[in-house]
Parts: sequence; structure tokens; C-alpha cells
Amino acid sequence: MEETLRITLAQINLTVGDLKENVEKILNFTMQAQRLKANIITFPELAICGYPPEDLLLKEYFVRDNLKALHSLIEKISDIVVIVGFVDRDREGNLYNAAGLIHKGKLKGIAHKIELPNYGVFDEKRYFQPGNSPFVFALGRTLLGVNICEDIWMKGGVAKYQADQGARLLINISASPYHAGKVTLREKMLKERAEETNAYICYNNLVGGQDELVFDGASIILDPKGKEIVIGKQFEEDLIIADLPIRVSNRPEAKVGRKCYIKLDKLNDAKKPDLPKRYCKKLDRKNEIYNALVLGTHDYIRKNGFKKAVIGLSGGIDSSLTAVIARDAIGKENVIGVSMPSRYSSQETQSDVKVLADNLGIRLIIVPIDSIFNVYLLVLEKEFLGLARDVTEENLQARIRGNILMAFSNKFGWLVLTTGNKSETSVGYCTLYGDMAGGFAVIKDVPKTLVYKLARFRNEKEDRRLIPETVFKREPSAELKMNQKDQDTLPPYPVLDAILKEYVEKDIAFEKIVSSTKFNPEVVKDVIQKVDKNEYKRRQAPPGVKITPKAFGKDRRLPIVNKYKEY
Amino acid sequence: MEETLRITLAQINLTVGDLKENVEKILNFTMQAQRLKANIITFPELAICGYPPEDLLLKEYFVRDNLKALHSLIEKISDIVVIVGFVDRDREGNLYNAAGLIHKGKLKGIAHKIELPNYGVFDEKRYFQPGNSPFVFALGRTLLGVNICEDIWMKGGVAKYQADQGARLLINISASPYHAGKVTLREKMLKERAEETNAYICYNNLVGGQDELVFDGASIILDPKGKEIVIGKQFEEDLIIADLPIRVSNRPEAKVGRKCYIKLDKLNDAKKPDLPKRYCKKLDRKNEIYNALVLGTHDYIRKNGFKKAVIGLSGGIDSSLTAVIARDAIGKENVIGVSMPSRYSSQETQSDVKVLADNLGIRLIIVPIDSIFNVYLLVLEKEFLGLARDVTEENLQARIRGNILMAFSNKFGWLVLTTGNKSETSVGYCTLYGDMAGGFAVIKDVPKTLVYKLARFRNEKEDRRLIPETVFKREPSAELKMNQKDQDTLPPYPVLDAILKEYVEKDIAFEKIVSSTKFNPEVVKDVIQKVDKNEYKRRQAPPGVKITPKAFGKDRRLPIVNKYKEY
Repeated sequence: MEETLRITLAQINLTVGDLKENVEKILNFTMQAQRLKANIITFPELAICGYPPEDLLLKEYFVRDNLKALHSLIEKISDIVVIVGFVDRDREGNLYNAAGLIHKGKLKGIAHKIELPNYGVFDEKRYFQPGNSPFVFALGRTLLGVNICEDIWMKGGVAKYQADQGARLLINISASPYHAGKVTLREKMLKERAEETNAYICYNNLVGGQDELVFDGASIILDPKGKEIVIGKQFEEDLIIADLPIRVSNRPEAKVGRKCYIKLDKLNDAKKPDLPKRYCKKLDRKNEIYNALVLGTHDYIRKNGFKKAVIGLSGGIDSSLTAVIARDAIGKENVIGVSMPSRYSSQETQSDVKVLADNLGIRLIIVPIDSIFNVYLLVLEKEFLGLARDVTEENLQARIRGNILMAFSNKFGWLVLTTGNKSETSVGYCTLYGDMAGGFAVIKDVPKTLVYKLARFRNEKEDRRLIPETVFKREPSAELKMNQKDQDTLPPYPVLDAILKEYVEKDIAFEKIVSSTKFNPEVVKDVIQKVDKNEYKRRQAPPGVKITPKAFGKDRRLPIVNKYKEY
Repeated sequence: MEETLRITLAQINLTVGDLKENVEKILNFTMQAQRLKANIITFPELAICGYPPEDLLLKEYFVRDNLKALHSLIEKISDIVVIVGFVDRDREGNLYNAAGLIHKGKLKGIAHKIELPNYGVFDEKRYFQPGNSPFVFALGRTLLGVNICEDIWMKGGVAKYQADQGARLLINISASPYHAGKVTLREKMLKERAEETNAYICYNNLVGGQDELVFDGASIILDPKGKEIVIGKQFEEDLIIADLPIRVSNRPEAKVGRKCYIKLDKLNDAKKPDLPKRYCKKLDRKNEIYNALVLGTHDYIRKNGFKKAVIGLSGGIDSSLTAVIARDAIGKENVIGVSMPSRYSSQETQSDVKVLADNLGIRLIIVPIDSIFNVYLLVLEKEFLGLARDVTEENLQARIRGNILMAFSNKFGWLVLTTGNKSETSVGYCTLYGDMAGGFAVIKDVPKTLVYKLARFRNEKEDRRLIPETVFKREPSAELKMNQKDQDTLPPYPVLDAILKEYVEKDIAFEKIVSSTKFNPEVVKDVIQKVDKNEYKRRQAPPGVKITPKAFGKDRRLPIVNKYKEY
């Protein structure tokens, strides 16, 4: 026998620490679900306080306020069943990553996360104790299991246990950070879990940006055969809804205990409105990455209270792509480009800057830096007497530009977006306090070869060209000295990026990189050395959107003092 | 019955990743111990690879090379028993923080760390599996337990278990990071452990700096009543040695198994040289902190391969103290001061800079910045037309100075030391890419009130004054505009530092700070707001020596996007 439940998954964008607004939004979505006569609405992991709250969790008053916020929510909940993430605390002061089960003004039950991730960007064992028993409750004659994020990733784990207890619907509330292709991984895993448990699966992911992380949404409901019933939007808020005919249990009340038993009352007798028709096509890879960058940039700017952003435009592909992303994120009226030409800037790049700004419809400010550069040279002349020009003079120019951009930031309250890509950041082909100066590094995790692809992709989406074709064609140059080309000091980008993927993202050994790529061992060694010795630069870099399986930042924690050489 | 063992603790300074040099040093100390006819020599936690190796542990070849290094050591060990930290790996690829027991060219046993710290600066659960059984071995008729760092901190834990198994001597190898007063905490804990177990305790700590951490040494041997037998130097390498008359066991071989049984051979019959007389007085608080700063600075500079360091000298107390520390760390011939006066620099500060440089015997370079500042103002005139001067123009100057210091760094290979204290860093009273520009922030974790105390302490140690008295007397000023004083925007430093200690170091709630300090609630709130909103600046700050229980950096991980307000 079956009973049909209408379940809604609220894939919403929350803000860390914004307890009041988060609860407000949770209530709004709950009301929407009630209008649709849903039996259940779920919300993401740690929805009340935002994810990840990091060391805010060490402040006892933060946990207290999150509990207060939860209770302010509880008292407003009537007929619908709400499942929402929050931080739980026991009498000894231990913290749990928890899901609250709320109905008719009461907290009917609590699921504690059992599998705590402590790798990659995750530090959950720093804060939480693992739960000790998987949570199952009954709604009418249906048994349901609730688990949290990592809990559902384990074969033979929490989900299986809940199914063995009779749960025919498994609800997972998540905050699963994006990297390219992650959605496919997740769907594969969820399909396996459905097949393993023979249960429906409702996977409710978070959406939005938080510092370096983007949560991509793509919440999903699967049937017990692992077939997709409905999938949520990517990179947008969404309310996912489905009517699920679920096999009922005998004596559900006895199985879960009185507290976790919820009667299926009149709500279910009411005539339910028809489900909205929906068709959600998954984004292809480039579109997916592009959207992650736009959302991550938007949320970093807005959640930090900035209205406008300023970008140094060089006429190169990196700053051009960054400007397009910024425009897509916050609108052309909120993006300001600054061109800061020097004696080494070519006619071509300067003309491209103007065309780009024009195409994008953004304001362009031109501030030539030669007069400033000249005075620095003069002031330092005595100390540098007799010494050849070198990278010092190149960095001086980059830092003059950094200073000017920061002056605009200070004077007008614009956030400076930096334009360095992952290839440069890896090998230190960038200037600390120069082109690295700024609040957010939009394409920090995007390798140069992918920068070109994303720029091409974005150009093709538009009727008229956004980034001038000449920008794609020109050999990359920092334009910090005469006739400079990136390839004077770096291997060609396709070679560099291939090595970096192996070394930075996968921690592959030197010998193996050489044998798998067939690149010149000297080239590979040189790249590895450059990556290793530039850890100090990355430590002072601004945050940026993670789009690869391993980004710089808390994903990759290497010491600065480090004499290890493998080769 | 008793048997006397001569045990030596090698408190040595190792470098992360420098496998070859680390093994070299371990061998040198082993030879010294052998000349002293010691039965046992111990080395710190993870001595082979250095501590903490962080994500180097995710590179399988790093772990492999650490094992190779261990084996290169093993084959050189003859009669003496060596106990040394290394990274162990099992067949499934799980890693363990381990201590190897080596004798006569063989690895006789391995202790795995059982208690893995995953709080504060520690991330050990990111890498290691916990061991599952405390390790005991026999030397002659004596039973000894070996455990690692955190293992010995737990009452009723690993140490107690080992004592219950019959161990009469407990060896703990550690890498315990310094903060002011930590040595007292450790000694109290070790005394309790001795009393709990009724065993001798040999506590072998690491010494040296690694990025933000300083390991302070102060290794110690206690008798079973918890009385100190010998204590090692603080902040220096040392070989600690004692003859311990230890109660013997019946049938030790049966208790530990053949593999972990080591015969007490002729070494023990040999006439042993007398122990060197030693008297090691513990440093008082200011001396201790000062030494931590000197060692941390020295090791960061040297282990990163720099010979010289450059410091912007303003005539204020922060840069003066930084210069003195740098001189004590690497010698006057290796420290360069740069004075960069502007129209706002007073005669007094400029004269103090000269006196200071003269007192320290360091080279002083003077680079006035007004001509550069003027050109910036000119170039930006059009864009800033009609707008009042504000913090923009102050930051411009600070960033010109940052650019000049970095130019010296780039041209001559000098490491730039920054001079910001913890009070400034907390409330953001500092300029990103300006006075924050540099490789190492020496006094980043030193509150302003303590800066004065340390400067005073250091002056008093010298016959002639190092820092001019006028520097102490003058009201603090950034000298970035006319008649500017720190106290225009900040509460008096004693008030500020008291609030910061509660809020930053102890995570105390607003209301509690107000009630315990009796400060004006508006002042407290203003400080908390400043701390919260300047997280973005600290994220781009250079590393610096941790001297308090909670430093900025990996000790305190707060999100940048964070709308939480408690008050």
C-alpha cells in the first residue's frame, strides 16, 4: 500500500551569521510550500546560521543565538513538517551539525550528522561531535530518514541503516561546495544510494557564494530505482516539488516512538493544486563554470555590502573576462574599468580596453602611470645606481597600479576585483600588492587555457561581440617591459596548465608527471619549483571562487617554510 | 630492585621538508649521546620530516621519502636506543603520527599517536588515523612507554594505561607550540601525569620557528613524584641528560613480546662519563616572549633562505622594537632601516629614527616620499575633484612606502619585515599593501601595551639605550595627516588591549566584556565591530610569530562574509 506525500525542497541562498534574515527567508519559503499544500518542506544544512560558520562556532553566544533563531522559527510553524539545518548543543557543550524536525510549533526530533568531513575545504571535526544514531521518523504511515550531507555519501552507512529501519524516503540536507563536474559526481552517488536502499531520495542542496565557496544548488529527487523525478536549478534559488507515492509501514508509531510520530492530518485531504510544469536542463561545462564565477562574485560583493566594483583593465584576456563576469554579476552601471597605461602599453591593448568598455557599457577611467613611475625611479636612483633594470622596475609599475585602484576603492567605496588566473597564481607570475591587490580574485582558480574558453563561450552567447577578437589573438604579455611576452619565462599555457593540473590539483609526483605528459623533465621541474616557492605570495592573495577540485586557500594548506624537494 | 638508565633528550631545531638535513642532525646528536654512553636518545615529534608538514602529507611521495629517510637513519644506529618521530603509513595508505624505536640497525617497534589534536592551530585529523594501542617496550628489565605529544595531556589516558602495563618510564615526544606561559601549563600537566602514573617522565619538545609557530623547547625530566630532575633550555637547541634509577619488572620480555625487548648490553657496563653540571633558570615572562619573537624571526628569515631584512622605520615604538628584534635575530650587518618621511613626518620622529639606527649600528637609507605623493595627487586630481581629503590620501602614502620597501626587496633580495602590532591588526588600523606589505610580521601577535613593555625590557638589558626615550614618551601617531594621533580613532591602548584580549583571544560575549571591564558599552561595541569588519585585511596579512593563546592565522578561522552581530 502507498500513501502520497507532497514534498518541497527549498534551495535557498543564505548568509553566514545573518540569523534573522535567514529565518525570514525560511519562513517565506515555508509559506509558499503551504500554499502548495505540501506535507514537508526541507532546507539546507545549517540553514539557520549559514554554511560554513567556521570559528563563529567557538563563540558560545553565536550557538545560543542560532538556537534562539531556531526557536523563533519553530513557534511560527503550523501544519507543515519543516526540516531545517541548525547547530545543536548538548548539556556538556558539545556541538552537532543538526537537522531539526518541526511540526505544529514543536521540535519533534533532531538528526545529528554522523559523518563529519575533515578534508579539503572542510574542518568539521574542529567543531562538531558526530551523532551516534541515524534518525527516522513517521509521517502518517510512512517512515522517513533524515541525514546530513556527508552522511549519504557512504555506501553501507547512515542511509542504508535508515532504509533497514524501514525508511522509504531519505531526506538529505546538504551544503555541497561546487567544483566543475561535481553535480555529475553527486548524481551518480545518489543513484547508487537509491539503488542500495530502494528508497526515494530528496537531496536538498544550498545555493550561493560564501567567501571562496560556491554552492551550486541542483537539488534533486530520485525514485527508489535511482531515476530522477525532478531536479532544481543550478546557481539559483528554487523550490523543488514532487508528489511521491510511498509504500507505507505497519505500526509506524511503534517503530519510531511517540515523539517522532506525526499524524497525517487534514492537510492531506485537501485538494492540492497542480504541480507547476518544469523542465530543467543541466548546464554544459563551460556554462556551469561561468555561472559559478558570476554567482560567487555577485555574492561576495553584495554580502559584504559593496554596491560597485572596480577593475584594472589591461587589454588582456584575464581582465577582459573578469570585467564581463563582473558586469553579469552586478550590472554594467556598477562596474568601473580603470586603464593605467605606461610607456610599455601598446596602442593595440589600449584600443582594446576602450572597445571592451564600450561593448560592456561600463564606465572607463584612464590614469596614465608614467609620471608616477618616473618619480619613483628618480627617488630610487641613488640607491639603485649602476644596477641593471630587472623585475624590480616591473613590480614598481604593477604596484603603482595597485595603489591607484585602491585609491579609487578608498575614495568611492568600490571593491577592487583582481584579474589573476590560476596559472599565474600557481607559478607566481604576478605581483604582490600590485596586480594581486584587491578584495576578490574572480578567476583565481581558472587556468589560463580555460580563461580563453570561457571568454569565447561568453562572446558566443551574445549577439554582438563583448571581448574584441584581437584580445584572443594577441600573445599574452604583462607589458611591464619592452617586448615582454609571458612565454619568455613560462612554458606555453597548454603545457603549463597540464602540469599544474597534475601537480597542484592531484599531488602527482614529478616522475609520474614526466612519464604521463612526456614533457621535458626540466620544464616540469621548473614549474614545480615555481609553484613551491611562491606559497608566500598565495598566502597574501585575496579570496576567489573555487571551481576546481583543489583550489588555493583552505583547500590546499602548505607550509611557507618548506625545504622538501622530491625530484 | 632498580636499574639505572642514562637517557638523553635531543631538543633540536628541524626544518619542514628538509629530510636529509634533519636526519643528519639526528645522527649528530645520536653520536653525542653515544659519547656520553647514554642508553637512550629521544627526538621530537615528526623529527624526520619537520612539524607541522601540513598538506605535504597529502603527497604520497612525501610520505615515501620520509620513510626512506627513516630507513637511512635506522641502518646507521648501533648500540644506543633511538626514539624518533616520523610519518608512518599502513598497507591501506592510512597515515599515523608515529614514534620509531630503533636499535642495532632495526626498527624494533612503532608507537602511533592516539590523541589527535584538531583545534587551535592543529589539523591532525585532516591527515592521521589515531593509533589503537599504547606502546610499551622493555630495555633490560625496565619497561618503558612511548607516547606522542597530546597523548600525555589526557588524564586517565595513554600514559595511565602504559603505567598500568608496568611502564616505569614514560617518554613523550612533542612539538608543542609556544604561547606566553605555556611552559608553566605544560609543567603542571606533566607533574600531574607523573603523580597519576608514579613513573618517570621524559618530555622531549621541539625547538625552532615554523611559519607562525615557535616551539620553545624547555624539555623536561620529572621523577615519579613529579619533581623536576632536569629542564632544557628555552628557545635553543639542547641535549638534556639524566641517569634514572628505575624499578625493574619481572619477566619484561614476556610482557612486551620478543620484538619490543631490547637487551641491556655492554653499553651499560662501561664506565660512564660524569654528567655535565647544569643550571637552567626559567626565563621571566617578558624575556620569554622576547626570545620567542627573536627565534621566530630568525628561523623564518633563514629557513626561507634570506640573508638580510629591511624595515621601514617611522620613529614609532613598533618599528623600533621590530628593528631591535631583527638585529638580535640576524645581526646588525644584516638589518637595513629605511626612513620614508613625508610632509607629515615630524622633526622628532625623524631624529629618533637616526638615533635608533645609530644605536643599533644598522644601515639607514632615507627616501623621502613627498615628490611621489604629489604626482599621485596630480594624476588623480581630475577624478577626485571637489572631494574632501580622507583616508584615501593617508593610504596612498602608506602604499608608496610599501612599494619602496618592496623595490629594495626585489632589487637586493632583502626580506621586508612589517611592523604592525596585534592591536592595530585587530581593529584594522593599518593599510593593506601599505604598512602591511612584507614577508613577515614580527610583532603581529603583540598587543601595543606589550610592545612598550618589551621595548622597555630590551632597553634595560643593554648598558646603553637602544630605543630613544622620546619614542616611549611620544603619543602614538601614524603621521599620515596633520596632527594625527592614534587615539583620535581608537580608545586608549590599555582599554583597547583589554577588550581585544576578551573578544579576540577568549571569544567572550559583548555583555560579559562590558560587565567585567566596566568600559563604556559604546566603546566595546565599536571595537568589536572593527575587529569583525577587518577580517578581510587580516586574510591578506603576512605571517608572524604566535605568542598569545589565540593568534590571527590558522588559529582563528573566521569567515569574511559574516553578518553576525551579537550585540
